[in-house]
Amino acid sequence: MIKAAIVGSTGYAGEELTRILLQHPEVEISHVTSHSFTDQRYDGVYHNFNKRFDNICEEENIEKLANNSDVIFIALPHGIASSKITKEILNKAKIIDIGADFRLKDKNIYEEWYKTGHESPELLEESVYGLCEWKRNEIKNARLIANPGCFTTCSILSLSPLVKENLIDLNSIIIDAKSGVTGAGRTLDIGTHFTECNETTKAYKIASHRHTPEIEQELGTLAGQKIQISFTPHLIPMQRGILATCYANLKDSSVTYAEIKEVYRKYYENEYFIRLTEKGVFPETKWVRNSNYCDIGFAIDRRTNRIIIVGAIDNLIKGAAGQAIQNMNIIFGIDEKTGLENIPISL
Amino acid sequence: MIKAAIVGSTGYAGEELTRILLQHPEVEISHVTSHSFTDQRYDGVYHNFNKRFDNICEEENIEKLANNSDVIFIALPHGIASSKITKEILNKAKIIDIGADFRLKDKNIYEEWYKTGHESPELLEESVYGLCEWKRNEIKNARLIANPGCFTTCSILSLSPLVKENLIDLNSIIIDAKSGVTGAGRTLDIGTHFTECNETTKAYKIASHRHTPEIEQELGTLAGQKIQISFTPHLIPMQRGILATCYANLKDSSVTYAEIKEVYRKYYENEYFIRLTEKGVFPETKWVRNSNYCDIGFAIDRRTNRIIIVGAIDNLIKGAAGQAIQNMNIIFGIDEKTGLENIPISL
Amino acid sequence: MIKAAIVGSTGYAGEELTRILLQHPEVEISHVTSHSFTDQRYDGVYHNFNKRFDNICEEENIEKLANNSDVIFIALPHGIASSKITKEILNKAKIIDIGADFRLKDKNIYEEWYKTGHESPELLEESVYGLCEWKRNEIKNARLIANPGCFTTCSILSLSPLVKENLIDLNSIIIDAKSGVTGAGRTLDIGTHFTECNETTKAYKIASHRHTPEIEQELGTLAGQKIQISFTPHLIPMQRGILATCYANLKDSSVTYAEIKEVYRKYYENEYFIRLTEKGVFPETKWVRNSNYCDIGFAIDRRTNRIIIVGAIDNLIKGAAGQAIQNMNIIFGIDEKTGLENIPISL
Amino acid sequence: MIKAAIVGSTGYAGEELTRILLQHPEVEISHVTSHSFTDQRYDGVYHNFNKRFDNICEEENIEKLANNSDVIFIALPHGIASSKITKEILNKAKIIDIGADFRLKDKNIYEEWYKTGHESPELLEESVYGLCEWKRNEIKNARLIANPGCFTTCSILSLSPLVKENLIDLNSIIIDAKSGVTGAGRTLDIGTHFTECNETTKAYKIASHRHTPEIEQELGTLAGQKIQISFTPHLIPMQRGILATCYANLKDSSVTYAEIKEVYRKYYENEYFIRLTEKGVFPETKWVRNSNYCDIGFAIDRRTNRIIIVGAIDNLIKGAAGQAIQNMNIIFGIDEKTGLENIPISL
Repeated sequence: MIKAAIVGSTGYAGEELTRILLQHPEVEISHVTSHSFTDQRYDGVYHNFNKRFDNICEEENIEKLANNSDVIFIALPHGIASSKITKEILNKAKIIDIGADFRLKDKNIYEEWYKTGHESPELLEESVYGLCEWKRNEIKNARLIANPGCFTTCSILSLSPLVKENLIDLNSIIIDAKSGVTGAGRTLDIGTHFTECNETTKAYKIASHRHTPEIEQELGTLAGQKIQISFTPHLIPMQRGILATCYANLKDSSVTYAEIKEVYRKYYENEYFIRLTEKGVFPETKWVRNSNYCDIGFAIDRRTNRIIIVGAIDNLIKGAAGQAIQNMNIIFGIDEKTGLENIPISL
Repeated sequence: MIKAAIVGSTGYAGEELTRILLQHPEVEISHVTSHSFTDQRYDGVYHNFNKRFDNICEEENIEKLANNSDVIFIALPHGIASSKITKEILNKAKIIDIGADFRLKDKNIYEEWYKTGHESPELLEESVYGLCEWKRNEIKNARLIANPGCFTTCSILSLSPLVKENLIDLNSIIIDAKSGVTGAGRTLDIGTHFTECNETTKAYKIASHRHTPEIEQELGTLAGQKIQISFTPHLIPMQRGILATCYANLKDSSVTYAEIKEVYRKYYENEYFIRLTEKGVFPETKWVRNSNYCDIGFAIDRRTNRIIIVGAIDNLIKGAAGQAIQNMNIIFGIDEKTGLENIPISL
Repeated sequence: MIKAAIVGSTGYAGEELTRILLQHPEVEISHVTSHSFTDQRYDGVYHNFNKRFDNICEEENIEKLANNSDVIFIALPHGIASSKITKEILNKAKIIDIGADFRLKDKNIYEEWYKTGHESPELLEESVYGLCEWKRNEIKNARLIANPGCFTTCSILSLSPLVKENLIDLNSIIIDAKSGVTGAGRTLDIGTHFTECNETTKAYKIASHRHTPEIEQELGTLAGQKIQISFTPHLIPMQRGILATCYANLKDSSVTYAEIKEVYRKYYENEYFIRLTEKGVFPETKWVRNSNYCDIGFAIDRRTNRIIIVGAIDNLIKGAAGQAIQNMNIIFGIDEKTGLENIPISL
Repeated sequence: MIKAAIVGSTGYAGEELTRILLQHPEVEISHVTSHSFTDQRYDGVYHNFNKRFDNICEEENIEKLANNSDVIFIALPHGIASSKITKEILNKAKIIDIGADFRLKDKNIYEEWYKTGHESPELLEESVYGLCEWKRNEIKNARLIANPGCFTTCSILSLSPLVKENLIDLNSIIIDAKSGVTGAGRTLDIGTHFTECNETTKAYKIASHRHTPEIEQELGTLAGQKIQISFTPHLIPMQRGILATCYANLKDSSVTYAEIKEVYRKYYENEYFIRLTEKGVFPETKWVRNSNYCDIGFAIDRRTNRIIIVGAIDNLIKGAAGQAIQNMNIIFGIDEKTGLENIPISL
């Protein structure tokens, strides 16, 4: 059994980690920590765990956790994980960081977008960006995983085959993303007060959202050149789900739907967690809800010579806890889909 | 492996049956039928099943199903199941009817509330009302299960211990229930058009809802006398969940919270799918969502000498597909919770 | 023009007061105060007011307001208004308190339910409970109005004719109420965080909600005797609206629907803001949304000899700001419906 | 008083026309027609009209309406209005068509996108595209108004100043739009069944939505050249509102925010119904809900040299009934904002 600790277990990503890991056949939860609910029973915070998990939330102590665990999941706001993790910790336990600290390889880009210094830049080279479908080999041997952001997972998976195969104008990429409110987390804020975000839609952090450089880094690596994109997130009055509507100009105006579909198949046909929709059918967030799937569909607009790609994930699962566990499965050499195979719940 | 057929598989209860049975370790789905989607792929109707279940929906043929299956789940509007099922069918396969045809033991009461004749009254005596926690022994040997209604499951489970132990005035029972919109099914109707039922709440079928005699029958059996209750359902703008707020006058004004809690424990302490909330904590539908649990809590109002009991279930699971599968597990002698153990998904 | 000040103008009741009063043909807003947004522009807090109202939110100073205003609306948490208002203030300006401080005539009952002392019990006798349809004559000459609570308005209007005419067993009254989330106000709380109250329903403050003694006081006055009721509020994932489902035993089992309808007509036929639904039709919150109407319908359950009455209001309008303005209209001798006549917006 | 008839009065645009016109000080409703509810009381269909409007819905008879009315609003699916309207009708009454029949000036483009013949192409030249802020002079003398589509109103108002002033690359325009569910109307459809569109988001009619050529026509006219855009609508689980997130490449990478703001002010500063948000503030649909306002904000993304413009309207008001009435006001020479001045209701 893999002994897993969850730091920040009472946030939404933490709750999903706890829920999925409790039902994972190869895992035993060693510790759950929570700053807000220290010394309280877990099922007193989340009553859905009644009769299932009454462990006490501990104050976080990374060394103690590392001594007792094979893997530590960290689900904390950015800036904290990087102040806790050291090479000594990594010698004891694998770290899967759901936060943003180790995603950007360039410390300067991190500091520019996050407006804060980086606490452990010496670990940036070692850390592996845990986008499982594209980094599997690196993940296998990693000690420190930077679990991708929710918007980034959906955006990169949707665009990667096109970028990799040089099918689109790299300067033309626009990603218009829509997220359910769990994406904003459990911290109280007027913007996520029910009566303020129900029955309305808004764009936010236009041209400034921190997932932008993350998408650019990964697509840039695939392209072999620097890429700059436009990324606009929107808040949608629903619990879960990310829909990324991606636009790009086609390099070759005569490329067919079938040819592009073949490119997607090349990369994703054998990927359990990626499902390509049929021609004329597009992803909806409900079809992936409560699952680790990423659904991808596209259309070609001949009039404008653009391709429109739509990707959908569950932000808390493939966009956070599920992908983190997928990373764990890869690292520990067990079947990648273990604990993550449930059929989406669309109702 | 138990070979299971699902009749009416593309309605909401049918979809949940399909989803849960596909993931049930002891079950193999033999057939799915659908009148509306005959000859279409299941995952073309419900895209959440992409890459998981591409069987073709068949036209229903009860004999063919019975020949190839150990159990047939029937999820159809009332009046149809009773016209299909015969003793010969029951000799071949167990029948678990999600609909209402076999719930009321008295044909006259059925005909009075459902405003239609009963097609197979000769089966009423044999049929077993499949409220698992209270009818387990009868279920074990049943060939024909009448799976309880969603409101009734929640209401009866909440009130039974009090009725059984003669703690409340039987003439004083009022059940004010709230249901998510999946309870109304997939059939198009102006009342469940998004823009007509979103952002509003209403009572419906006041003093005339068909779950009323079902509750009265079962509580009456426990009480050993005829009972008449008031039952008022309300439609709530959410997907899933039933909350039943039940009111009754206490017979003994000096009875304590602890004493009543002890009565609930007597009946439910060992019931896996029933969870009693702690004093001062009450069920919410989210805490049982996507699970087979029924959560129950109560308060005593000393001023009025009333007890207020709150029960919560997921209407599609404990109120339909989940309880049906729980019945199947009991009948086939496997662990009652098989395939139904997932932790609720509250987010 | 009536000069009106709004204290607590950036809470939800305050916002509705501001919105309606700005469009009231006989009113000029003299001041808006806000503790949280002092010195900020009103349309910077509520962008719906862009180009319509850019006044600066002031720190509250009751004497200054009284000197410059004919009427002061106070929309603050309980306990504050009673500490500010004095007979000198009342000599200068009429006070309409949206809060709870002056609703309960018995200081002891206030202190028992609100768990705090009362700051100005000497004003309790003078204050008038501003339930317009039942207190119009007292309101006309009032200086201090205790604007009724949202649940209480809906509940009392629904039950008063039956109580007044002695048609129901006074010990049998149960009110099961459902409220949209604006009823909980704008203060951040985990219970009204979008992702915590969306897609779920719960009862709260069972047998302990503070609107209980208010309903009992008013119904008791009509009955000429002490009344104790059961009142259970529920939180519904929608913005606005209260639905009160009320249950009571009929004294005379032979009373007809028509006879009871006649009683309702006797009291409400000429009331502009009360609408009785036709037989078989029941109120829904959407039919009164964004209006000052209270819709009332009922059914008789012959089997149990109960009457079920359903009332619906918009909690922010008839349940708060609208009724407050209706009170103002009465006090200042202008047409009671001025500024409040808009047709409900059901979509 | 202007005598106004409403054809298709029980659809959602029709209901909003009825609601607003009933409260319009210069209008008297002459007829309401409804195919689905012929001979039924209007307040029996929409209970929010109880005690306010009990007229009987008539079968549509355009000649009769024209004889008794100064203006006829037509809110029907495309293809019907054009089969009813003739020059004789136009001699008798002004026609404001909420539908799509007269919006596209080029019959061929209409037939290509709507896949049907045009019934009265001879009226296309006379008809005026009723985008009030840009066509006021033509509207004044029009007999036949083609009221703009909801998405088009929001998109064109957001982009027009930039196109008119030649600030953006016309080949680079992408409009990613989000709509509430009332935009899909009252006709029952599985896609707008509550449980199918609640808690999910999807794109639809990608690269094929019929509002595309309408936007292209109007922006093309302003640009003086043919324009082709990408337009993708999305369905959002809320009642009302359209948010259009528009992307375009700036021609001059050195243009400042202030310079572009000045361009918007040039066209919109004196427009009552257009509100420009402050720098860093972006429109949300709630801020315009239940009003005729269009809010517009923008950001410049220096990294990609793109401008991102966000526009918001209430789809049923500025996107349908409100703008239709604004057109009526202009035609009849009364203050353009009459009946449309209410402050948005954000809660």
